[in-house]
Amino acid sequence: MEKWRRSERMVLITKMLLENPHQLFTLGYFAELFQSAKSSISEDLSIIKNAFLETGQGNMETVSGAAGGVRYLPYNSPAVEKEFLDDLARRLSDPRRILPGGYLYMTDIIYNPAIVAKIGTIFAHRFVGKEPDHIVTVETKGIPLALMTAKAFNISLVIIRDDSRVTEGSAVSINYFSGSSKKIGTMSLARRALEPDARVIIIDDFMKAGGTAKGMIDLMKEFKAEVLGMGVLVDTKEPEDKLVENYLGLLELKELDEKNEKVTIHSKNLTEDV
Amino acid sequence: MEKWRRSERMVLITKMLLENPHQLFTLGYFAELFQSAKSSISEDLSIIKNAFLETGQGNMETVSGAAGGVRYLPYNSPAVEKEFLDDLARRLSDPRRILPGGYLYMTDIIYNPAIVAKIGTIFAHRFVGKEPDHIVTVETKGIPLALMTAKAFNISLVIIRDDSRVTEGSAVSINYFSGSSKKIGTMSLARRALEPDARVIIIDDFMKAGGTAKGMIDLMKEFKAEVLGMGVLVDTKEPEDKLVENYLGLLELKELDEKNEKVTIHSKNLTEDV
Repeated sequence: MEKWRRSERMVLITKMLLENPHQLFTLGYFAELFQSAKSSISEDLSIIKNAFLETGQGNMETVSGAAGGVRYLPYNSPAVEKEFLDDLARRLSDPRRILPGGYLYMTDIIYNPAIVAKIGTIFAHRFVGKEPDHIVTVETKGIPLALMTAKAFNISLVIIRDDSRVTEGSAVSINYFSGSSKKIGTMSLARRALEPDARVIIIDDFMKAGGTAKGMIDLMKEFKAEVLGMGVLVDTKEPEDKLVENYLGLLELKELDEKNEKVTIHSKNLTEDV
Repeated sequence: MEKWRRSERMVLITKMLLENPHQLFTLGYFAELFQSAKSSISEDLSIIKNAFLETGQGNMETVSGAAGGVRYLPYNSPAVEKEFLDDLARRLSDPRRILPGGYLYMTDIIYNPAIVAKIGTIFAHRFVGKEPDHIVTVETKGIPLALMTAKAFNISLVIIRDDSRVTEGSAVSINYFSGSSKKIGTMSLARRALEPDARVIIIDDFMKAGGTAKGMIDLMKEFKAEVLGMGVLVDTKEPEDKLVENYLGLLELKELDEKNEKVTIHSKNLTEDV
């Protein structure tokens, strides 16, 4: 391969880092790929690190030692995060989103890849110290959020089916009580979908009473998986006493008044402990 | 904002382009953002374009005129694509993937964000001239692939429910015959999920007889949506006579012999017409 100029290396290294978050790249790897001295590559990486740092979009973590290198951790500064979540809250607080039965129409938001990619980055940053093996969700609406969180961690997604239609060999099923829909549901996961002692983070789009979330936690126990954390995009103020504790909600639905056509959602203070 | 060095601009412009594929950025926008002359920005963009071109990973399209600018189109060179799909075919041709009933275990592959991101790029490149408004899929297994295709196009995803559990106001349901499972199913989509005359591309993970695919096409007709194309990750050699025509399959399942524990999948020649 020919020699590359620094400006070209900047483009290509940035692309590799962004497309492979959390993956450790050694100086030697880049030095060989670009036929450059390790000292030049080291300087390249400093420039990338500073550019991310100064604009508050992404962290570069340096791992020292013989097996050392750098890895890119998706991140947005608190100011960027707050502006994004406030905007999302504003867009969701639109009375035209109220659906019969007191539901809120959110699919245009939670199926928008650019938006869910940003939410995935927020979750991945909040849970960065946990080092999960998988992101777990239950079908259907939470899947895009969960996939983008998994992408930001560069780990695989596990999707629990919300019935027993699993066609992947033996499966474990549990019943759960959904407080929102006031009914008993069944959720199932194929045995081979999760190895024993897996470390997981659960991601979903919405939490009211927490019945579905509790179902997922119970199912994880059946797999001897360790639930390191749970994140939801929107939770409701009422009931305050949820069936699960210690979860991270990004937005809070304070009020959904179908009769008076009013919906109030605000972003939460993310400095609180997860 | 202070002046940025070229090497820093390279990092930040590359990040913006990669995170916003298909979005048009004007020279003036970057010039103002970085407080740089348009001629410097123009040179920056040429360097990025060449770096992508020389390594066969991504296209930069230049749009001329007063409202002109550049946009990034995800792309991999045919060689990179072929190597990736061959590797995928090899990994899927593992007899341990055979499930009771003649199914193939693929979820570890199709729920892996890094893999589905690459597949999304392949679909987006193949359908780049079509300019869709939305990517459409049916729950559940095709969702990650469809979301990543939508991400590569920077457009939103529409997920058809495969029953009538839609809680989003009035919905349109149709029955379809699934040749693989030999049963009649119902798929539904909320009225407000798709505007009239929408231009869509359908993405799914697997096609056997094409009954589910035909169901999606029929449902799109109910919404007066125009189906511009259809892409599936794996289709089966048998039956050769599918219920739908003109779709793009990336991998072909030639044989799945449960008794003799043999499965054969190969990548298809992507030069064929879509």
